[in-house]
Amino acid sequence: MAELSKTSGVPVATIKFYLRERLLPAGERTGPNQSIYGEQHLRRLRLIRGLIEVGGLSVAGARDVIDAVDSELPLAHSFGVAQRAVSASIDPGDIDPEALAGIDRLIEGWRVSGDNPGRLAAARVLETFGALGQRDERNWFSRYAAAALLVAEADLDQVEARGSREAMAETVVIGTVLGDALFSGLRRAAQEHVSALRHPVLSEPDRAPTKEQECP
Amino acid sequence: MAELSKTSGVPVATIKFYLRERLLPAGERTGPNQSIYGEQHLRRLRLIRGLIEVGGLSVAGARDVIDAVDSELPLAHSFGVAQRAVSASIDPGDIDPEALAGIDRLIEGWRVSGDNPGRLAAARVLETFGALGQRDERNWFSRYAAAALLVAEADLDQVEARGSREAMAETVVIGTVLGDALFSGLRRAAQEHVSALRHPVLSEPDRAPTKEQECP
Repeated sequence: MAELSKTSGVPVATIKFYLRERLLPAGERTGPNQSIYGEQHLRRLRLIRGLIEVGGLSVAGARDVIDAVDSELPLAHSFGVAQRAVSASIDPGDIDPEALAGIDRLIEGWRVSGDNPGRLAAARVLETFGALGQRDERNWFSRYAAAALLVAEADLDQVEARGSREAMAETVVIGTVLGDALFSGLRRAAQEHVSALRHPVLSEPDRAPTKEQECP
Repeated sequence: MAELSKTSGVPVATIKFYLRERLLPAGERTGPNQSIYGEQHLRRLRLIRGLIEVGGLSVAGARDVIDAVDSELPLAHSFGVAQRAVSASIDPGDIDPEALAGIDRLIEGWRVSGDNPGRLAAARVLETFGALGQRDERNWFSRYAAAALLVAEADLDQVEARGSREAMAETVVIGTVLGDALFSGLRRAAQEHVSALRHPVLSEPDRAPTKEQECP
């Protein structure tokens, strides 16, 4: 275990915690105080860290996701489990029916089940936009839906490029959890870029002041 | 205040907390135990709830964002403040230079400052993907970047469609905070849809079993 800790950079106490919480399978016991941990453990440990530290999952959420990777469930189920683990549980009855109808108009023609956690989360956002008086101008929301479809196509291509069922399931959960963070990061960079293109002066506050600014 | 609570559906204790935390401006005092709260307070209260409950911001994060809306900062700064409020603070020195270079290749040609929080967050995700052995196959990441650009264009169009500077700043922060949630929700719905199109049987576990499944 000391060696696993050294190789992975994860403290021994944390590894013990993951073992107790059934996130990490036990090593092969070779003596009263000795177990062998292999490449599989190192790989799993990295997955746990990625899910919790970068993906922001709870320990319980990470366990659900890892159980889905280990199970023999069809791949589509891994998606469902990963999606539920990273989504707040929302009761459809709590959502304004008009917001739900708004989402269903946005994703018209998509084959999506009524309890898809993304559909409910998106409806919750639409409800909040409505309460805040943010109307959908210039097809704001449908452009999000079109971009989401592009990303989902890329996600599925990536999953299908993997070889084994386990590798595919791993990519499903990693992609679901970390893909959100990758997209939101790139979106922020893109906002700065588009804003700089459209409003060059505003976006460069530290460039040399113009004459007007010097002598108001 | 009782009336504000009734109209907004926010408990009096919560309103008092927001007043104490300077999220909500004080009402106009009309007597020792009486203040007048107007339309502005109701609107602000809805913004606070949206930022904290749907956007997942902390009270401190919501205050930063609201201060940016109220300030006379140029619009591009509101973007920066909103972005920082919703992003974990990341020290560029903590990120694998190779992951940073990877992001910079993805967003080549974009006008993005080195400390853009999205650039750093995306690099952190790339670093984690790398540690987990997830390689970028079939242009996975660059398709994310292309979709992020589409969404950022839609975001800027929406902001520019607003009239006043305050309304624009409000849309910047609301869109930055809630847009992440909207996109990730739509992405999950799109994943189910694309997966159902490509793997019809796997995605319909409860449809009638085929003969083969009945008699293996």
